[in-house]
Amino acid sequence: MQSTVEVKLSERSYPIWIGTGMLAEQLALAYERIPNWKHAVLIADQSVSPIADQVAEALTSKGIRCDVNGVPSGESSKSVDQLSRLWDAMLDQRADRKSVVVAIGGGVIGDLAGFVAGSYMRGVRFVQIPTTLLAMVDSSVGGKTGINLPKSKNMVGAFWQPHAVCIDTTTLQSLPDREYLSGLAEVVKYGVILDLELFEYLEAHAESLVQRAPTAVEYIVRRSCELKAAVVAADERETTGLRAILNYGHTFGHAIEARTSYGRYLHGEAVAIGMSMAGELAKDLSLWSNKELIRQTVLLKRLGLPVTLKESISTEDLLSAMQLDKKTENGVLNLILPTCLGHVEVRSNIAQSAVSAAIDHCR
Amino acid sequence: MQSTVEVKLSERSYPIWIGTGMLAEQLALAYERIPNWKHAVLIADQSVSPIADQVAEALTSKGIRCDVNGVPSGESSKSVDQLSRLWDAMLDQRADRKSVVVAIGGGVIGDLAGFVAGSYMRGVRFVQIPTTLLAMVDSSVGGKTGINLPKSKNMVGAFWQPHAVCIDTTTLQSLPDREYLSGLAEVVKYGVILDLELFEYLEAHAESLVQRAPTAVEYIVRRSCELKAAVVAADERETTGLRAILNYGHTFGHAIEARTSYGRYLHGEAVAIGMSMAGELAKDLSLWSNKELIRQTVLLKRLGLPVTLKESISTEDLLSAMQLDKKTENGVLNLILPTCLGHVEVRSNIAQSAVSAAIDHCR
Repeated sequence: MQSTVEVKLSERSYPIWIGTGMLAEQLALAYERIPNWKHAVLIADQSVSPIADQVAEALTSKGIRCDVNGVPSGESSKSVDQLSRLWDAMLDQRADRKSVVVAIGGGVIGDLAGFVAGSYMRGVRFVQIPTTLLAMVDSSVGGKTGINLPKSKNMVGAFWQPHAVCIDTTTLQSLPDREYLSGLAEVVKYGVILDLELFEYLEAHAESLVQRAPTAVEYIVRRSCELKAAVVAADERETTGLRAILNYGHTFGHAIEARTSYGRYLHGEAVAIGMSMAGELAKDLSLWSNKELIRQTVLLKRLGLPVTLKESISTEDLLSAMQLDKKTENGVLNLILPTCLGHVEVRSNIAQSAVSAAIDHCR
Repeated sequence: MQSTVEVKLSERSYPIWIGTGMLAEQLALAYERIPNWKHAVLIADQSVSPIADQVAEALTSKGIRCDVNGVPSGESSKSVDQLSRLWDAMLDQRADRKSVVVAIGGGVIGDLAGFVAGSYMRGVRFVQIPTTLLAMVDSSVGGKTGINLPKSKNMVGAFWQPHAVCIDTTTLQSLPDREYLSGLAEVVKYGVILDLELFEYLEAHAESLVQRAPTAVEYIVRRSCELKAAVVAADERETTGLRAILNYGHTFGHAIEARTSYGRYLHGEAVAIGMSMAGELAKDLSLWSNKELIRQTVLLKRLGLPVTLKESISTEDLLSAMQLDKKTENGVLNLILPTCLGHVEVRSNIAQSAVSAAIDHCR
């Protein structure tokens, strides 16, 4: 069984195919969709090289010349060094404007390979094969690509849409537990910001999801992609402000990641703590009810996610890292805060003391 | 006196203001045009720091916070190292999404600063102040930005349009002779590919132009911007093939620059030799008359430009460098060849022996 979510962006529209054990069929669809495809540059997380081999075999059988570039696992690969190495490698592999970059891995690979695709010769075509839950529900939808600077995450990059996204949920089976659970944080986020029904589904199926029950997993992946696709279609380049709601929990989360050198917490874990901080802040400002905040906290915990900061980072340090956030404009910090389950608002000019207090509540 | 060329790209349209001694007025216009401008990141060629100071003073007087980043002169600054250094500098300068990058210098600065602007936080606003003839007539129009890889020129970058371009031809007065003349090569190119009238104007005013007579200089700058703007408006992202005609002489020229490590020839000089090679090839293939080829050669020489390759690069080396050109698709080299003054065609599948012979004619 396979379903399709269409991301509607006029001439940049593309399909996300979601299925279980369908990768070869999905690649055949991608091949049909992309004209004049004769060369593929695979950029793959080294930890999923068997999947990369499978993709290379399927593409080679279509007569496509394949070059495979392995990238070390982990956030530290979203670096200027990897970017520059891949640019040089593509040139050596005689990639040209008709070549197609195929990203195989999690969010790190999608972001890195997407920026490589968006900048090589000022942009070549791009297919995503996400192999982590986080990448399936979040980073493979929306066209945001980029790398980190030493002092701040996702600070440079491009908006670059893929031509197709192939999601085969069987690739999740080998994912380490912690990484799988981390992806659920973004699914909780969609529930809180946009969809009470999804939030209630998560509450009702928390244990099945922790155990990776295929039906539940396919449902939340599809629903998350649909929700994100709708937001992205309405605000592709984050200009109307709508897309900013996707950053719920992320301003805190990114600061936590930056101040722990991207090593202590997985992205979803930092976002879970960030949502807890944003939730506390919303409650303190009387925007959100304590009852709903508790539902968020309980759900995150049932999904095996952290809700408090265990590291001894000073509140001052976190605040200063938050000031470097991309959503800061002319020095004013904008935060996404829930008002009820399924709805959030953008707030600016929040007193620093209130932000500090929310951080301190989550220790 | 000041004239305006509009570059029409729907919501990305922007004006090019062209005048003599008008920089302060042009900056005031830019300030009016760009909403919510409170911070400027100046990226300036170190050789024009007096102009950068003038710009910083004008902007500061409007209440804009200015950070000035000097960049060493020369093609070697279009590097991953400079790109990465400027990204880090902008972060340190607390540049955010509302900051505006202002490029002050020649094509190297415009290309580098444009890619910085197009990638920092996935794109911030951008103003160009070209101070060389080459940048005025070519690189400041069209939104192509990027850097070089060690093995190939302009290989990575982005399409990123400025919000305004301020051309003050008085900045040309201090330009070294060789660099000024190099810019005239691109003007000759516009004549050959698109505009017999411009070509004849150049023939009629060659000596005044060599002496930088203000009226003649303003005329050719404006006409070149108009011609390029029309091509770019019709084919912003080089998808219909029309924009490719702007690369007349450039496939040879880029290969010459690459094989001399971007040190022996200025860009316009390499393009002048490249146009001579492309012209020879067109003549050999009976596409172009010998008489018109001679007119091109004579004009280039009167403008103090080279038409033969003085370096001992083997023809084989040049051919292999040409294969790395971005216009190569699935291994087929596309070349732009003139058929009469004011008109060119794109040709592919030209026998390598014919290309070799054309190169050898220009030694």
